[in-house]
Amino acid sequence: MPRPTIAALILAAGKGTRMYSDKPKVLQTILGEPMLRHVYNALAPRFGSQPFTVVGHGAGLVADAFPDMSERFVLQEEQLGTGHALQVAWSAIVSAGADYCLVINGDTPLVSPEALDRLLDQTGCCDIAFMTITPRDPAGFGRVVRDEDRRVSAIVEARDFSVAQHGPATGEVNAGIYLLRVASVGPLLDRLGNRNNSGEYYITDLVGLAVDHGLAVEGVQCGDDVSLMGINSPRELIHAEAAMRRRIVEAHIDAGVLVHNPETVIIGPGVVIDPGAEIFGHCEIYGASKVAAGARLGSYTHITDSAFAAGSVVREFCHIESAEVGRDAVVGPFARLRPGTVLGAGSKVGNFVEVKKSILGEGAKASHLTYLGDAEVGPGANIGAGTITCNYDGKNKFTTVIGPGAFIGSNTALVAPVTVGRDALVGAGSTITKDVPDEGGAIARAKQMNISRRLKKS
Amino acid sequence: MPRPTIAALILAAGKGTRMYSDKPKVLQTILGEPMLRHVYNALAPRFGSQPFTVVGHGAGLVADAFPDMSERFVLQEEQLGTGHALQVAWSAIVSAGADYCLVINGDTPLVSPEALDRLLDQTGCCDIAFMTITPRDPAGFGRVVRDEDRRVSAIVEARDFSVAQHGPATGEVNAGIYLLRVASVGPLLDRLGNRNNSGEYYITDLVGLAVDHGLAVEGVQCGDDVSLMGINSPRELIHAEAAMRRRIVEAHIDAGVLVHNPETVIIGPGVVIDPGAEIFGHCEIYGASKVAAGARLGSYTHITDSAFAAGSVVREFCHIESAEVGRDAVVGPFARLRPGTVLGAGSKVGNFVEVKKSILGEGAKASHLTYLGDAEVGPGANIGAGTITCNYDGKNKFTTVIGPGAFIGSNTALVAPVTVGRDALVGAGSTITKDVPDEGGAIARAKQMNISRRLKKS
Amino acid sequence: MPRPTIAALILAAGKGTRMYSDKPKVLQTILGEPMLRHVYNALAPRFGSQPFTVVGHGAGLVADAFPDMSERFVLQEEQLGTGHALQVAWSAIVSAGADYCLVINGDTPLVSPEALDRLLDQTGCCDIAFMTITPRDPAGFGRVVRDEDRRVSAIVEARDFSVAQHGPATGEVNAGIYLLRVASVGPLLDRLGNRNNSGEYYITDLVGLAVDHGLAVEGVQCGDDVSLMGINSPRELIHAEAAMRRRIVEAHIDAGVLVHNPETVIIGPGVVIDPGAEIFGHCEIYGASKVAAGARLGSYTHITDSAFAAGSVVREFCHIESAEVGRDAVVGPFARLRPGTVLGAGSKVGNFVEVKKSILGEGAKASHLTYLGDAEVGPGANIGAGTITCNYDGKNKFTTVIGPGAFIGSNTALVAPVTVGRDALVGAGSTITKDVPDEGGAIARAKQMNISRRLKKS
Repeated sequence: MPRPTIAALILAAGKGTRMYSDKPKVLQTILGEPMLRHVYNALAPRFGSQPFTVVGHGAGLVADAFPDMSERFVLQEEQLGTGHALQVAWSAIVSAGADYCLVINGDTPLVSPEALDRLLDQTGCCDIAFMTITPRDPAGFGRVVRDEDRRVSAIVEARDFSVAQHGPATGEVNAGIYLLRVASVGPLLDRLGNRNNSGEYYITDLVGLAVDHGLAVEGVQCGDDVSLMGINSPRELIHAEAAMRRRIVEAHIDAGVLVHNPETVIIGPGVVIDPGAEIFGHCEIYGASKVAAGARLGSYTHITDSAFAAGSVVREFCHIESAEVGRDAVVGPFARLRPGTVLGAGSKVGNFVEVKKSILGEGAKASHLTYLGDAEVGPGANIGAGTITCNYDGKNKFTTVIGPGAFIGSNTALVAPVTVGRDALVGAGSTITKDVPDEGGAIARAKQMNISRRLKKS
Repeated sequence: MPRPTIAALILAAGKGTRMYSDKPKVLQTILGEPMLRHVYNALAPRFGSQPFTVVGHGAGLVADAFPDMSERFVLQEEQLGTGHALQVAWSAIVSAGADYCLVINGDTPLVSPEALDRLLDQTGCCDIAFMTITPRDPAGFGRVVRDEDRRVSAIVEARDFSVAQHGPATGEVNAGIYLLRVASVGPLLDRLGNRNNSGEYYITDLVGLAVDHGLAVEGVQCGDDVSLMGINSPRELIHAEAAMRRRIVEAHIDAGVLVHNPETVIIGPGVVIDPGAEIFGHCEIYGASKVAAGARLGSYTHITDSAFAAGSVVREFCHIESAEVGRDAVVGPFARLRPGTVLGAGSKVGNFVEVKKSILGEGAKASHLTYLGDAEVGPGANIGAGTITCNYDGKNKFTTVIGPGAFIGSNTALVAPVTVGRDALVGAGSTITKDVPDEGGAIARAKQMNISRRLKKS
Repeated sequence: MPRPTIAALILAAGKGTRMYSDKPKVLQTILGEPMLRHVYNALAPRFGSQPFTVVGHGAGLVADAFPDMSERFVLQEEQLGTGHALQVAWSAIVSAGADYCLVINGDTPLVSPEALDRLLDQTGCCDIAFMTITPRDPAGFGRVVRDEDRRVSAIVEARDFSVAQHGPATGEVNAGIYLLRVASVGPLLDRLGNRNNSGEYYITDLVGLAVDHGLAVEGVQCGDDVSLMGINSPRELIHAEAAMRRRIVEAHIDAGVLVHNPETVIIGPGVVIDPGAEIFGHCEIYGASKVAAGARLGSYTHITDSAFAAGSVVREFCHIESAEVGRDAVVGPFARLRPGTVLGAGSKVGNFVEVKKSILGEGAKASHLTYLGDAEVGPGANIGAGTITCNYDGKNKFTTVIGPGAFIGSNTALVAPVTVGRDALVGAGSTITKDVPDEGGAIARAKQMNISRRLKKS
């Protein structure tokens, strides 16, 4: 018998009214990643890029944020509830030939692959399985009702729950993550109704329907695992983010990363840091950043999607995006590296220097008040204070090439496209519009006139 | 019968010796506001700008800090105690025609209007009412002594208190906030003595005197309300500030503001933030700042008295004072906006850019290493990297006007007063001293000379 | 009888494998100081610069970091254990004529002089004394075994300890700090063996040997004094650093320093702050910095080895190393002061300004986007925005002198060596290569040409 196939379906159509934001709720970020990305990450070990996602509110924004996943987006034009979302997506699930479907909300960023595995283990055993938790404060959650044999009989929304009708409250509530056998659940979908206070179709009603039809239903008890809880308000997001932040930082410390002042350090879930790296808080590291052993990141730094080789040093007050910092290179303080920056071994970018889409060769230096955009700087070149590459004419961007060993005098403008040759020298205060040959010199400077001002004084 | 009129009197003459500072104690700040401002704020709902303030130590500095209140300042030239302060201010209270006088110390920044209302409710009932608290550590506070019928008989300074004389210590102490009936208390003022260890006149002695004279005295018990306690040392100030910080941040989160990393966020009491705004800690927002829904303030930001429209983004490492940031405008990272900066919708101020008293039109951009002072920048204008407005000649400041759609080449100095016309273009590296007409071009640049350096090499 | 002489010996040869770092463990920093410096500091009251230090792993790096101590470094070429380190150093101890030798690990940065005094008090009483602690978690520590009379009989490594052989575990463990009588212990050194799991020579074995030889051995019980514990992992370092950070900040607050947001303030052990100074967190102050009463350090600041006079203000986002900031001087926001910066009274260094090895006279100002390197700026001089001192020709550094009252126009390059005279004026946009006389003026600027662009438009 072949292993049953499982599809994953993420419900991500909601607005998140209690977030008070125009942004779709699943795009709200935790540690710099949209909540939906966290859910994709949790699904990745089992489902890769294959999950289906029901989108609705701000669907275009969600698609823009996840171009890699949007091929399997299902549009729920009207948001009529979780049951309705399932109805809308069902044909895609069926077309995919799945035997089972895992359904999860896009606002549960803390869920782990391991937690999901507990539910997926029910494959083959039942028609509907779902995860239940017993949180400290069950208010607002759908209550799990079990019969005298402890078998699930229904999920009842909090406001509809009554002890008289449903028995004593146990505190066991629905976490909102389901495993559905496609063949069994399909026929029930049309029976979902919306005669309730919200006028919405609830996926939770499937459970009662399934029990009524004699299907096998299992509530997988997960204790007080708060990681399964959905995010509905700023406070809930903040709590989840704090928990994840702490968990990640502690894991890095346990692995041998020296994190000074760790309460003030934020490390995203996709960041890779080798044991022996040293980080000083307050520091923020996001995205797919990589920090090698022996690299050192100073305090007051903000880093996204960047790589730091062994021996490299980021000093204080640096802002770094999509850059590569080579072995023993030194950055900052007060440096800004923008996407496309590649710093060679032993190179140096100093204070009030911005680098964009530029490559600095080994040992090259730009130490003060400089803008390097669309530039190629050769090994050992020295860029004087106040140098500006004029890479933009209002319409297009052009390249500046600075040769190995070149010396650019201070307060110089390099009007691209332009090349300064190997070991060439540019005089301070020049505006360079023509190429400077290898080992050549260039100057573009008005003659100094001294005048007496004594007579002018009142 | 007309409602009795109440005057408010703030005692703000003290030096605050335990603060070890030359600054008058009431000017020490909590969340960016002087302590006295917090007290004025607490009084505002009932007294507006009408409170009297007794000033003494550093009176001039206090008056400078509160020009709006200083008309009702009363100068206590010698600081001979709280009773003396009351004596000095009394004629002003009487002249104001007040039936009652609320007396409060200027070093109680946490007090709330609601707490004061509890005392003001005693109006009409008694001659002297005062607030009492039962703090965890009553050491150093004046003890409230009550007779066997639980009626107040006196306030005894901590060091003068003895169980033999005053009965068992109850832990109930004087919070130092009084409501005095003017007609009853006036005659007692001259009877205050200074025969005590400090040689000072204590306002607390009024209570015993009033009891002796058969006046109605009430101690309003406020439990352990630490918000009534005065600030006498750095540690007390720090604790009060921490408590207020937490209270304010939590209130914003509850209201629907998304505050990432909230332990590192400081928000002043006068800041207005709409639900749906997003703030990343570490962040500091002071004064009368306003943040609209959909605005986003990055980490490492320091903001005072500034407004942020919907969709505006402040990136990391920005310092912003008395500025307005328009809809969808983007600021930073590493931008400094000084007073008088107005950024139009969709405009952009980038890194290492300082803007002072300047207006940027819709979509205008100044992205790198620029100083804009006293400038008017038209919509869509592009200010190149390294542009400097030379607005100061050592004596006066002059205006730079940059027309709509103008393009200022990099590393340019604009010597004000000067106008660059609509859609005009200024070449990189120029120093512009004369107006550039609409759609015109200007360049001020020395000719580049290339020279061979090969022979010169050793 | 003369007082016995005591030598101090620090074991600092270890690699610190669990730190995962190439750096020798004792160079790992706590609050900006290498761990070994903390140990030297603890020894300083009794031993000054006289301690011997056994170095091994990365010995050269350790010597570089402590040039003041390296004369008394003893090289342990192979690291064969603590006992071996003692053997290697013994001849130096004996040559120094010491009666006793205090032995301490270089990875115990929290140890205090007072704690060491407890051990040193044993001088004259015994042949070997050592400190013991009873930590909450004794796992991994060498167990102290005592006989039925509570006399120490041995120290047994944790993995070798058995209840059968050594009696019930008491939780008392060896802290690794010893006082050895040179005359008694010398003869035992050769008897240390390495037949154990690590194949290392353990100093702890001395205790059992001494007992066997009838020497007087004392285990000085220090309760749960965690300050005696060694640092072996990033987590232990982080905990120690947090504890020391808190202790230092609290001590400053108790002394009368106003530290806002104190959880985010880092103050090194060598920093001196007068009561009445005001500090805003997040702030970091390291090294031998001094902050006078009435000075004010803003948030987002990073300070090392610098001094701040009364009334001086460091605004937000400043990075300051080895600088002196004079009375009422104002720095920042976004200023970088590098070593050798001296700011005169009332001077001002503003945003995106870097100053290196330069002196600013009283009231001098450099407010925007400026680099001052190797400059002498006279009192009252005004340095315009975008001014660059071109102090480096690729090989050597040269000096720029700016006279009292001089006015440097914006966007100017000063090519050193060059002098601008007293009250002289330099026009904006100039590149100055020749001296400007006192009260003179200079300009080096190309003529502006305006051109019509209307015809060129497409």
